Amino acid sequence: MPQPPPEPEIIMLDTPEIPLATFEGLVFGPRSDMPIWQQIRDHILGLIEGGALRPGSQLPGETHLAASLGVTRITLRQALQQLQAEGHLTARKGVGIFVRSPPAIFSVRDGHPFRENIETHSAPITTDTRFVRRELATAELAARLRIAEGAGIIHLRRLRLLGDQPVYVNDKHFPADRFPDFEALYTERQSVTDVFRASGIAAFRRVETRISGGFSSADEAENLRLTPGTPVFHLNARNEDDKGRTIEWTSGCWPLMSVEFVFGAPTK
Amino acid sequence: MPQPPPEPEIIMLDTPEIPLATFEGLVFGPRSDMPIWQQIRDHILGLIEGGALRPGSQLPGETHLAASLGVTRITLRQALQQLQAEGHLTARKGVGIFVRSPPAIFSVRDGHPFRENIETHSAPITTDTRFVRRELATAELAARLRIAEGAGIIHLRRLRLLGDQPVYVNDKHFPADRFPDFEALYTERQSVTDVFRASGIAAFRRVETRISGGFSSADEAENLRLTPGTPVFHLNARNEDDKGRTIEWTSGCWPLMSVEFVFGAPTK
Repeated sequence: MPQPPPEPEIIMLDTPEIPLATFEGLVFGPRSDMPIWQQIRDHILGLIEGGALRPGSQLPGETHLAASLGVTRITLRQALQQLQAEGHLTARKGVGIFVRSPPAIFSVRDGHPFRENIETHSAPITTDTRFVRRELATAELAARLRIAEGAGIIHLRRLRLLGDQPVYVNDKHFPADRFPDFEALYTERQSVTDVFRASGIAAFRRVETRISGGFSSADEAENLRLTPGTPVFHLNARNEDDKGRTIEWTSGCWPLMSVEFVFGAPTK
Repeated sequence: MPQPPPEPEIIMLDTPEIPLATFEGLVFGPRSDMPIWQQIRDHILGLIEGGALRPGSQLPGETHLAASLGVTRITLRQALQQLQAEGHLTARKGVGIFVRSPPAIFSVRDGHPFRENIETHSAPITTDTRFVRRELATAELAARLRIAEGAGIIHLRRLRLLGDQPVYVNDKHFPADRFPDFEALYTERQSVTDVFRASGIAAFRRVETRISGGFSSADEAENLRLTPGTPVFHLNARNEDDKGRTIEWTSGCWPLMSVEFVFGAPTK
């Protein structure tokens, strides 16, 4: 086991550290069937769900927290690892452990054009465009976009953040021959819908959306700042123009606990 | 690389146990950053994904398997617990550990009436009706069904099985005053759609479907034969009749790795 690093004296302004006293009040069930680490897990989850531990805030160092709860660091670590695996906490290497934000709502409504609508009850959603570049279609992407293997495609990767916390990493692929000015248009307007319009597509629609479950790959974990192996949603979707031609294939990844998908939501 | 397994001498028809030799061939990376239990987890997952471990088949006993892999039972157990948490394996108390089946496809298509469509590439899907009974609406269910708290509701619980493995537990609630003969009609026809028709509902539609992620409760774990805390999908949906009145509220739970949801799937 690595030795505990000395605790920092300084509290960073943007990552508020939770005071130790917040964790007090846990009384272990002496004859409980439940292992102590699990009682700690439940206690910390209760503090998160009750609002005592705010999203984005940083947990105290392991040594202090273990002492405060009256357990060994090994026991505490089991509880914290479980909470990370469940997506309630997230670790940043060399920085610390943080409380994740509550779910965003991702609404998938019918109609022209498709609206990718993220609502949250907490911080605003922002978009970080990681890159837009030209590539050659792999066999899989060619099949998805109904184009020839090796044909030119445009690859746009974006990250959606809730506050400063990434909640959605998204790879969009477009057939290059439909969008000769994609980069210039996107850079100017920062909206795929606007690029579609400016490229002469009068109407388009989401024809298929697929949602499956899995566990974050190393890449996804890095983009979403998750512990690798955290359960995630995988989303795939296809957009067609009004002539039934595929103009976009999207692959996205959300932490399991960070989103609720709503299909066909009523207007109120 | 794994050695080709020798053919088993005896094949059990209902719960075939996997021969130990299937697991041979794992060479630990001596200077690997990866803990041994994780190498074992990857090895077993590779055997599942490669088809060497067939869905529904039973793993050898821990003692034998640990000896065969050349690790302690504690190390093996960490790997098996991780694979259970990920939904690749499932434990039955006092029976053993089994390989889970590959995903079913749950299609959610638009239109009248809503089709709850499960396609699989392996075993057929069957339905086990656990109970149908009358209850009084809790505040939450009353709000969901747009009826008064304490009003009568009908509660139908069903389990969907892929082969003999439960993949979906589903609680449907209906306003009792709309369906005075629900039990008799359902018993006779075994179909909710047929009950709707026989109760004078000409057309109905799924107006809202919500999908979120979580971890199986004790109840859900028992119904789905999962290790509690396994990641799951939660599905909620609402059906309206052609006059815009809510006639059904559904809450369902799927193991994360057992289903892919498809919305607005194309006809071919």
